[in-house]
Amino acid sequence: MTKRIGDTLFFDVPPAISGFAAVGGKKEGEGPLAADFDFLVRDTTFGRPTWEQAESRLQQLCVTKALDKCGVPPQEIDLVLAGDLQNQCTASNYTLRELGLPFAGLYSACATMAESLGLAACLVQAGLARRALALTSSHFCAAERQFRFPLEYGGKRTPTSQWTATAAGAAIVEPGAAPPFVKAVTLGRVTDCGVADINNMGAAMAPAAARTLLAFFADSGKTPRDFDRIYTGDLGAVGSALLCELCGRAGLPLASKHEDCGLLLFARGAQQVGAGGSGAGCSAAVLCGRILPALARGELGEVLFVATGALMSPTTVLQKESIPGIAHLTALSGRR
Amino acid sequence: MTKRIGDTLFFDVPPAISGFAAVGGKKEGEGPLAADFDFLVRDTTFGRPTWEQAESRLQQLCVTKALDKCGVPPQEIDLVLAGDLQNQCTASNYTLRELGLPFAGLYSACATMAESLGLAACLVQAGLARRALALTSSHFCAAERQFRFPLEYGGKRTPTSQWTATAAGAAIVEPGAAPPFVKAVTLGRVTDCGVADINNMGAAMAPAAARTLLAFFADSGKTPRDFDRIYTGDLGAVGSALLCELCGRAGLPLASKHEDCGLLLFARGAQQVGAGGSGAGCSAAVLCGRILPALARGELGEVLFVATGALMSPTTVLQKESIPGIAHLTALSGRR
Repeated sequence: MTKRIGDTLFFDVPPAISGFAAVGGKKEGEGPLAADFDFLVRDTTFGRPTWEQAESRLQQLCVTKALDKCGVPPQEIDLVLAGDLQNQCTASNYTLRELGLPFAGLYSACATMAESLGLAACLVQAGLARRALALTSSHFCAAERQFRFPLEYGGKRTPTSQWTATAAGAAIVEPGAAPPFVKAVTLGRVTDCGVADINNMGAAMAPAAARTLLAFFADSGKTPRDFDRIYTGDLGAVGSALLCELCGRAGLPLASKHEDCGLLLFARGAQQVGAGGSGAGCSAAVLCGRILPALARGELGEVLFVATGALMSPTTVLQKESIPGIAHLTALSGRR
Repeated sequence: MTKRIGDTLFFDVPPAISGFAAVGGKKEGEGPLAADFDFLVRDTTFGRPTWEQAESRLQQLCVTKALDKCGVPPQEIDLVLAGDLQNQCTASNYTLRELGLPFAGLYSACATMAESLGLAACLVQAGLARRALALTSSHFCAAERQFRFPLEYGGKRTPTSQWTATAAGAAIVEPGAAPPFVKAVTLGRVTDCGVADINNMGAAMAPAAARTLLAFFADSGKTPRDFDRIYTGDLGAVGSALLCELCGRAGLPLASKHEDCGLLLFARGAQQVGAGGSGAGCSAAVLCGRILPALARGELGEVLFVATGALMSPTTVLQKESIPGIAHLTALSGRR
């Protein structure tokens, strides 16, 4: 059975993540996590005529790899929960056209990997799906044209801006006895402190990350000391500093436990990625390429994975709306 | 407990839809279902400076009305499952900023109401949420500019085109003893038969609707005769004819049982809506304004609600991609 306290669901019999894969592009292959990817593709087009199709191809490679690694044929997946940053989530829609599996489309911007993994865990734990697949991606070129400028324009980037990862992560959730396990899920609340700068998404998302983390700590009675690592989605340097300040002020300093997927994926200085990596595929790939394998090997015991999303659209940015943020949390365990 | 057969989940103890509301705009108030709306707003701007904000205001009115009708304060909702047609689902994102409730963002285009209601039923039935709110909307002016032309351009419409409803539906799901109940859920598979005409979405979606319906009939052992009505999302005149042909060929003629929300919402000839209504809010409002009240009053016994979605984006249309369709099904009951 499952216990709900506050906003958090605690699973008495935590479902397992039995398969996972991370696929990345050229720049990801030049970064510090290159060895963690299951697959790196130097050709950013992935052999497709459009960036949108390229991202869908990236997803398909990732799903195939995740299924292969755990020996599950596609038809044994009861439900795919997937989303991406493209308008109307078309990368996922076209991927699911190829896969032909039952599909629940999600959108939480760069928080989608935690949403998809969290909902997959809920449905599997409740026996509503025997196996569910959580899938999330982003593609630098598709996102850049859609949210900012066409690549050919050569727009200047501000120091607070982040670099959208060309990456995908896929995780298969099912009942199982081997770690990693999903022990708890907190679906977040939309939080907006008034940041309207699309080139400072870390600042827009940090308050949402703090809110979800503080809700989880209150619901669970735990503190940052109870975890080996607390991974946030893609706050980058600016958002990470703000998150640590917000949690510290609330009496729960994250201190040395905190790492940000956007800061792990790229070497900031050498790779010229501004304040760090971002994009729904950033936290998805770091989760599936780095965090889950470490949990499976027992190198990590208890971790929190908090993916963060900035919920603007190209239209609302032009309308000078402030950027609402959201953060979803999954508590993961490498202990049997 | 829940039984899964094929793609369909059958709930032994079906959750109830304890509250629901439908809100519409000016044209919806001039149509045959005017009396079914809880609230009609003649000012299409909803008093807001942008169409995007207008749609969010429409959602907020709808949620408030649904909560008021069943006397539930907002803070007693454990989770909101919501989505819309705006790029990055911003209508829902800004609504949830105002509501401040835990939020799982969804995207299934015009199939979103069945996805949100179906997932809400799953989570409530499994005890993962005490109360969940399913919310979906569309706004003609926001959708028209985004997917087709700015209104000021005065673009001609083809006879197969459909008219995006300015409407929203909200439904609250919780354990309960009074109908309507959600008895079963089938989450659909993406289906694409090659239609690439954004002005013929009915044809693009009909094969997905047929696929989901035929899956449900196979999984449940039932036929169209077992239902008082089979409502499809927004196939309009063209898509409805194709759906009936496809189901008839498969030996399961829908015959007099079939009604389409897109054909119910507007008076086609008099209101000049082409092949009928469409938009995620179309099926959402017909569900919450017409179908659920009839089930609650016992005027309908067993119905299927099959919302249909066309999964293109403005970008993929310009790229001349074909339009993938999806359809999600919920089996609803007015019997105690």
